[in-house]
Amino acid sequence: MSEYDLVVRGGTVVNASDIVKADVGVKDGRIVALGEKLGAGAKEVDASGRLVMPGGVDSHCHIDQPSSTGGRNAETFETATRSAACGGTTSVICFAPQQKGVGLADGVAAYHERAKSACIDYSFHIVINDPNDAVVGEDLPKLIGEGHRSIKLFMTYASNRVDDGQILRILEVARRNQALVCVHAENHDAIMFMTEKLLAAGLNGTKYHSWCKPALVEREATYRMIALAELMDQPIQIFHVTCGEAAEEIRRAQQRGLKIYAETCPQYFVLTEKDLDRDAREGAKFLCSPAPRTEAEQEALWNYVKSGTLGNVTSDHAPYNIGDPDGKFWAGDNAPFSSIANGVPGLETRMPIVFHEGVVKGRLSLQEFVAVTSTNAAKLFGLHPQKGAIAVGADADIVVWDAEKKTVISQDILHHATDYTPYEGMEVTGWPAATIARGAVLWQDGEDMCEPGYGRFLAREPYDYIKPRGAFPTPFDPVAGTVAE
Amino acid sequence: MSEYDLVVRGGTVVNASDIVKADVGVKDGRIVALGEKLGAGAKEVDASGRLVMPGGVDSHCHIDQPSSTGGRNAETFETATRSAACGGTTSVICFAPQQKGVGLADGVAAYHERAKSACIDYSFHIVINDPNDAVVGEDLPKLIGEGHRSIKLFMTYASNRVDDGQILRILEVARRNQALVCVHAENHDAIMFMTEKLLAAGLNGTKYHSWCKPALVEREATYRMIALAELMDQPIQIFHVTCGEAAEEIRRAQQRGLKIYAETCPQYFVLTEKDLDRDAREGAKFLCSPAPRTEAEQEALWNYVKSGTLGNVTSDHAPYNIGDPDGKFWAGDNAPFSSIANGVPGLETRMPIVFHEGVVKGRLSLQEFVAVTSTNAAKLFGLHPQKGAIAVGADADIVVWDAEKKTVISQDILHHATDYTPYEGMEVTGWPAATIARGAVLWQDGEDMCEPGYGRFLAREPYDYIKPRGAFPTPFDPVAGTVAE
Amino acid sequence: MSEYDLVVRGGTVVNASDIVKADVGVKDGRIVALGEKLGAGAKEVDASGRLVMPGGVDSHCHIDQPSSTGGRNAETFETATRSAACGGTTSVICFAPQQKGVGLADGVAAYHERAKSACIDYSFHIVINDPNDAVVGEDLPKLIGEGHRSIKLFMTYASNRVDDGQILRILEVARRNQALVCVHAENHDAIMFMTEKLLAAGLNGTKYHSWCKPALVEREATYRMIALAELMDQPIQIFHVTCGEAAEEIRRAQQRGLKIYAETCPQYFVLTEKDLDRDAREGAKFLCSPAPRTEAEQEALWNYVKSGTLGNVTSDHAPYNIGDPDGKFWAGDNAPFSSIANGVPGLETRMPIVFHEGVVKGRLSLQEFVAVTSTNAAKLFGLHPQKGAIAVGADADIVVWDAEKKTVISQDILHHATDYTPYEGMEVTGWPAATIARGAVLWQDGEDMCEPGYGRFLAREPYDYIKPRGAFPTPFDPVAGTVAE
Amino acid sequence: MSEYDLVVRGGTVVNASDIVKADVGVKDGRIVALGEKLGAGAKEVDASGRLVMPGGVDSHCHIDQPSSTGGRNAETFETATRSAACGGTTSVICFAPQQKGVGLADGVAAYHERAKSACIDYSFHIVINDPNDAVVGEDLPKLIGEGHRSIKLFMTYASNRVDDGQILRILEVARRNQALVCVHAENHDAIMFMTEKLLAAGLNGTKYHSWCKPALVEREATYRMIALAELMDQPIQIFHVTCGEAAEEIRRAQQRGLKIYAETCPQYFVLTEKDLDRDAREGAKFLCSPAPRTEAEQEALWNYVKSGTLGNVTSDHAPYNIGDPDGKFWAGDNAPFSSIANGVPGLETRMPIVFHEGVVKGRLSLQEFVAVTSTNAAKLFGLHPQKGAIAVGADADIVVWDAEKKTVISQDILHHATDYTPYEGMEVTGWPAATIARGAVLWQDGEDMCEPGYGRFLAREPYDYIKPRGAFPTPFDPVAGTVAE
Repeated sequence: MSEYDLVVRGGTVVNASDIVKADVGVKDGRIVALGEKLGAGAKEVDASGRLVMPGGVDSHCHIDQPSSTGGRNAETFETATRSAACGGTTSVICFAPQQKGVGLADGVAAYHERAKSACIDYSFHIVINDPNDAVVGEDLPKLIGEGHRSIKLFMTYASNRVDDGQILRILEVARRNQALVCVHAENHDAIMFMTEKLLAAGLNGTKYHSWCKPALVEREATYRMIALAELMDQPIQIFHVTCGEAAEEIRRAQQRGLKIYAETCPQYFVLTEKDLDRDAREGAKFLCSPAPRTEAEQEALWNYVKSGTLGNVTSDHAPYNIGDPDGKFWAGDNAPFSSIANGVPGLETRMPIVFHEGVVKGRLSLQEFVAVTSTNAAKLFGLHPQKGAIAVGADADIVVWDAEKKTVISQDILHHATDYTPYEGMEVTGWPAATIARGAVLWQDGEDMCEPGYGRFLAREPYDYIKPRGAFPTPFDPVAGTVAE
Repeated sequence: MSEYDLVVRGGTVVNASDIVKADVGVKDGRIVALGEKLGAGAKEVDASGRLVMPGGVDSHCHIDQPSSTGGRNAETFETATRSAACGGTTSVICFAPQQKGVGLADGVAAYHERAKSACIDYSFHIVINDPNDAVVGEDLPKLIGEGHRSIKLFMTYASNRVDDGQILRILEVARRNQALVCVHAENHDAIMFMTEKLLAAGLNGTKYHSWCKPALVEREATYRMIALAELMDQPIQIFHVTCGEAAEEIRRAQQRGLKIYAETCPQYFVLTEKDLDRDAREGAKFLCSPAPRTEAEQEALWNYVKSGTLGNVTSDHAPYNIGDPDGKFWAGDNAPFSSIANGVPGLETRMPIVFHEGVVKGRLSLQEFVAVTSTNAAKLFGLHPQKGAIAVGADADIVVWDAEKKTVISQDILHHATDYTPYEGMEVTGWPAATIARGAVLWQDGEDMCEPGYGRFLAREPYDYIKPRGAFPTPFDPVAGTVAE
Repeated sequence: MSEYDLVVRGGTVVNASDIVKADVGVKDGRIVALGEKLGAGAKEVDASGRLVMPGGVDSHCHIDQPSSTGGRNAETFETATRSAACGGTTSVICFAPQQKGVGLADGVAAYHERAKSACIDYSFHIVINDPNDAVVGEDLPKLIGEGHRSIKLFMTYASNRVDDGQILRILEVARRNQALVCVHAENHDAIMFMTEKLLAAGLNGTKYHSWCKPALVEREATYRMIALAELMDQPIQIFHVTCGEAAEEIRRAQQRGLKIYAETCPQYFVLTEKDLDRDAREGAKFLCSPAPRTEAEQEALWNYVKSGTLGNVTSDHAPYNIGDPDGKFWAGDNAPFSSIANGVPGLETRMPIVFHEGVVKGRLSLQEFVAVTSTNAAKLFGLHPQKGAIAVGADADIVVWDAEKKTVISQDILHHATDYTPYEGMEVTGWPAATIARGAVLWQDGEDMCEPGYGRFLAREPYDYIKPRGAFPTPFDPVAGTVAE
Repeated sequence: MSEYDLVVRGGTVVNASDIVKADVGVKDGRIVALGEKLGAGAKEVDASGRLVMPGGVDSHCHIDQPSSTGGRNAETFETATRSAACGGTTSVICFAPQQKGVGLADGVAAYHERAKSACIDYSFHIVINDPNDAVVGEDLPKLIGEGHRSIKLFMTYASNRVDDGQILRILEVARRNQALVCVHAENHDAIMFMTEKLLAAGLNGTKYHSWCKPALVEREATYRMIALAELMDQPIQIFHVTCGEAAEEIRRAQQRGLKIYAETCPQYFVLTEKDLDRDAREGAKFLCSPAPRTEAEQEALWNYVKSGTLGNVTSDHAPYNIGDPDGKFWAGDNAPFSSIANGVPGLETRMPIVFHEGVVKGRLSLQEFVAVTSTNAAKLFGLHPQKGAIAVGADADIVVWDAEKKTVISQDILHHATDYTPYEGMEVTGWPAATIARGAVLWQDGEDMCEPGYGRFLAREPYDYIKPRGAFPTPFDPVAGTVAE
């Protein structure tokens, strides 16, 4: 009888800190042993010459979620998580949105239902766009208590945006009930104003998407959000930072000891505003928010990743079909940039692109790659060490990485339901040879073995990253209503 | 026959740059000569042993203006400008507010009427709280064309605040018509939120005024306003900066070449949050917005004054009677801090306090004193060199300063109509020996010779400080609707 | 027959990134397995309820080394490494100094001899104070090739200091041969000048040690050293950073992408300049360089540790006997501060103090504790993953930590040969329950089982941290003598 | 009989702060009146349509001074000051160097002799390269007392450089006797090292001059000098700042309240490193130290001029003949860059270039032009208001400026004795129509009326800018040898 259900044998195990040669022994979906020469497994994966890393944790992806322009996005949980798994990712956190006319708890329950087709484990951010009394007084505390320990808010998008007063209410409920607050930070009024002016001037091509929201609208909202979080002493994460000037404000806040976390995305490493400057629907393939910047900003971002200011890299997978049958995403060749749904698909390409741009190009060590694609997100969102580590006791979520394999990214080889990839034709070195989730092999040597329904919801307990510092600007604690001695 | 109408003889003439011994010859209200030994004047003022400086230009004072809590404030133009003159100030810029139910132009016209009792020259900032189409399309362009080249907006106060979108519209009209935009920068939602929480916790004393609006709400709004101005390439002035952290954001913007100007006020040099920590109506005497900070912030402010980041010092004279007969200012002993009108009187004490704290304490040179109390404001608001200089051709607006005179400030010796001074009991060295406005002596050796109606409206032409840089974040000029090559 | 030589059973394994429950199996001095329930060990250490962490790596300690005031310091390799082991440290890097009249290679060989009594593994920094042609042309390249991949230079101390030109020569040889350069950064001339002035004014007590070298002399030298390293594109580590202002310069350099690393020491977390303000020989117990600062600087340092600017914490163990028999350390009660050897002992107390001040006081996570006391130093100096990780294949260098144990530090309980501790009377929570080095238990439950001679020299191969960036200020590479295209 | 010796009539008088229309009346070499319509002058200069500004104060020029490569430079006092006057400058401060084998006082006395041929007023900086006891104890205090209130030190150049210890001695004597310390800040050892490496690689063309001293060697020395000045609480001026990164360090120091002043030079606004990249002796015409940088740095400099960090613009006139008869400057076509004397001529072109690049290109107001070319230097060096102002009582040092005149700069039209200008062929708008010094017209409408010997030595009394702050890093005052309470 074999000692283990599965042994990943002969590989180089890379964790966020350490890198060693070891076999990995799995039983009942968990890693139970790491050793030099482990006994036999009922199943074995040969990892010789390969890297054995924690499966990716993609803490920012939109799956089967109503878009802001109406309609649902292009992916089901099945297609999205299959695509993720084939790209080396074994956990996703996606968005359960508050919807008009639907109670928050009911909406989340319905989303749970849809998620049952997931191939890998998942957790939810609760999107709040109307923090009314019922929401902040009842629904949210209850949902947080059930393990939804992160809230998402938008500072822009007409249908989602919350104003500063609403933000403070959300921060308050998060602090009182121990949840992290995640933010899309752009100044809404500025974007609306610029959009109106651009359209009035007849500038409606996709190119102008980046002109309606220059870096400063991101920088401003980032700064404001940090100030509001400081006022409430509440940890937050800034989503999808695209430029050095926003990252610098985050760094300044971190240096003062604030618990401000931040992520960036692969699209901001490889796309630029030039990609938007294309005719008709081609430009729409690169249209996301915040907008891609310049090559100089890409390099600036890497320095902030390296220094830890930007702690993880997510896909912000936001999948809309360019050949959209019901016109939600692509309103036609003369439709203005402002009518096009924002977002690019990227669940499957996230890890290969970060590996190529980071490790292969000498900007990241292997350990840093693991940290930014898996471990740091797992920690920040309360999933660690169950997720994000090749360690005894952790879930056997593993990506066996072929660091030499050259791949030309193309829609043909991807598994998502979206009808294009913005990275078409890009050659990368490094691709998952196998993906293992809780001990099950989901992807190996080009074969997809994902099974819908295998994934489980990840409820999250309180954890260190969401613990406030205990320091307000004045002696008054506005959440507790008390005054410090 | 005398060569001059007036000669100020034997003094040391101090300008913003230079300091020399010279007589000053005046004819028809203007300085026509500076010389070593000028011929006789029909009238002579002996300035020997004294400083002869440009009369103060106080570019931020509220006179005979409806307060945000209703009712008019404590001063008429007569009382306010008399008080100003007795304190060495010879020009004021006050606020013509947009009022509900009154057309903007009509409101300004009515304000002009009231201003006819002024003892010294005056100009207006136009306060905009509703930039509707009529206002930005017709009224404002016309008023700016008539010489009202500055607009004031509030980012806080329920009755006055404009949101980011409205701010952008105001910046647009200012840029198109060449006017400066002045800003009260505090985050309204944050103040409201904190106020609600403080009151809910039973913390309603004046002390808590400073807790409801800590420095970060000022810093945040300052940063945001700068970003919006950068987006529109429009020069602005940040009013009443109180703390190093807001000043630092201004400095960063200036260093990038943006035309961001800023002022501070005497109250932020000498009052602190401790002054608010008093019983009942005593605390209300020190209640202004933004709130007084700490002694450390006072010192920080001086460094930013010295380096030019903060270019001038105004009174923000905002006069409300503590013994308010109609309950507008002082709602009673149990009224919460949030019901008390914000503001302190200070027209008359502005120059003595800045002289004492600045020159006497070694923080400012005499020339810097002139710059921050007179010349810089005259330049920034388009009044220079008519105002703000002891120079041939300039209006004969002169303060003869007794740099040795020790005065204990008290309500008894002041000329305003407000029923208290927050500086009661403070001893300062340096006080006006005489104030001369367009050649007329308004104040001399303790005698008030002001005459209501002597003051004239100062219409202002376009000038350098309001000229934009010509650089936007993207190639698109949202005001012109054009794209740069 | 037991499967393992040693099993550390039932503990919570903490690495720099991860924390899990696991047993650790050891064979032939190396960790060969981590597992949930490992088979039996010939020896077992019960770690239930305890933390199992990588043994400390103290990359900055002076052992059996001639002091700058002559004579050898208080420790032999045996006493120093015994003390280290009893405090949880399993590797040390100490200093092989270039000596007058002794060839560099001969000196290092002699030092190797002395090191043979070490109880734990060790490596050397080569101290260079005269980079003459023989040294940079022959000796150093050879020594580096033999595994001495770090060079230490002093910017102060009359007998050791090198000037900027000499620094550049050292950087050049380091870059050419792949070694890290470590620096004691203080402005020598400034210290000499201030010392002369203080003594001339009759101020010779130990208190004045901190006055002769205020923070700015450290900040200046830090900045200068970084500039020289940038000119040569050579990675360096700044030793013993004591203050926010020096750390800030390091951070600025790191943000630009430079490979500038830095450490601080426990004494700068818990001692202040006030400790030096004592009579006679008491003050000497706290006299080290750079000098202890203020409590505000301690807090500033923690923020820079937290953000990664300061990557590890070393002891800078510099042991001199206060009851010095031959007068080298303590020249008598009237001897000036400048005649007292600089340094405090700290090998044994390093980890407990960092644990107490960091983890117990909520400033560091357990993983961060491991990173700063062990893993980061191992990586920076090329010892990882052999050292600095509880990982398969690593040396079985383990500290079993009792996180609850309260200990009052006192000379009585320490194992060093120095005759005092500067931390006498300080109570800390957390102390090593057992220390294991390459599988051998050296310390357990208060019993010292160290054996002189057990320690081995650690030769170091080239590694990533000492690889230059490949970017110079101009197209010219002064080391290769080539010009980039 | 005319009322005035001279009247400059009908012009627009520009001072550092104010700008007005006025006539200027002169008697006995001093301005005695400014007026709208002054009475007649024995001589009249028609300034209608022109600017009437304070004559330039060039506080950094090398005249008739031994060069560091031996020999005297190309100008006599007569030629240099004639050239200055023809370019609008009416006062110069040049360098009396300490020379080997000549007592300091004797050397200064000899320099006084040579200066007797000056056409305009002059003052001296005393260059110290050996602060021995006789110099700091006797000669310097005496010379400072005689009005030489500025000391120059070099941090580079083999023959002149002083080390940090010597710098501290110089700062000490300056503080004790009230003199300003001016600094050429570049890291000598770094330059020597880079030079050696470049030459060894066969890179000896003038192009490599800028490679041997990249911006960081200037930034480092600037930072170090500021630190030493802060340690001694002594005001200093950093000479010839060339780049944003050095200016930023100065700004940071100023913001902390330190009395750190700084200048830049026209060459750093218009020359770049590309100018050095020429064949043979052509490149030598642009070779100065610090080296010209890039166009990006030029723009950065302007921002620091605008914000006041860089307070004045001097020529750093350092005249060497390219057709050097005795080989001191130009050692031949194959001579390495390191053998060429550093410096470019620029006394006469300074004001036109700053006017063109500053005022004409919209970077400076007219008042700012006056401030940076005249007033600020006069103030900083204790010559104000005798110099640097069009004001009653001031010396009648006036430049009448033709703001419309277009001039192509060429060696033909200049009056210096140097045999080239680095600005050959550059067209500028704005040129002096007349230059008046103490009431005498020296240059008018293209005619040179300078008279050797007309210039007088300007002794300088103590003044505000050299007064220390009274704040040291510790309670100890190393100059007084006292401890603050």
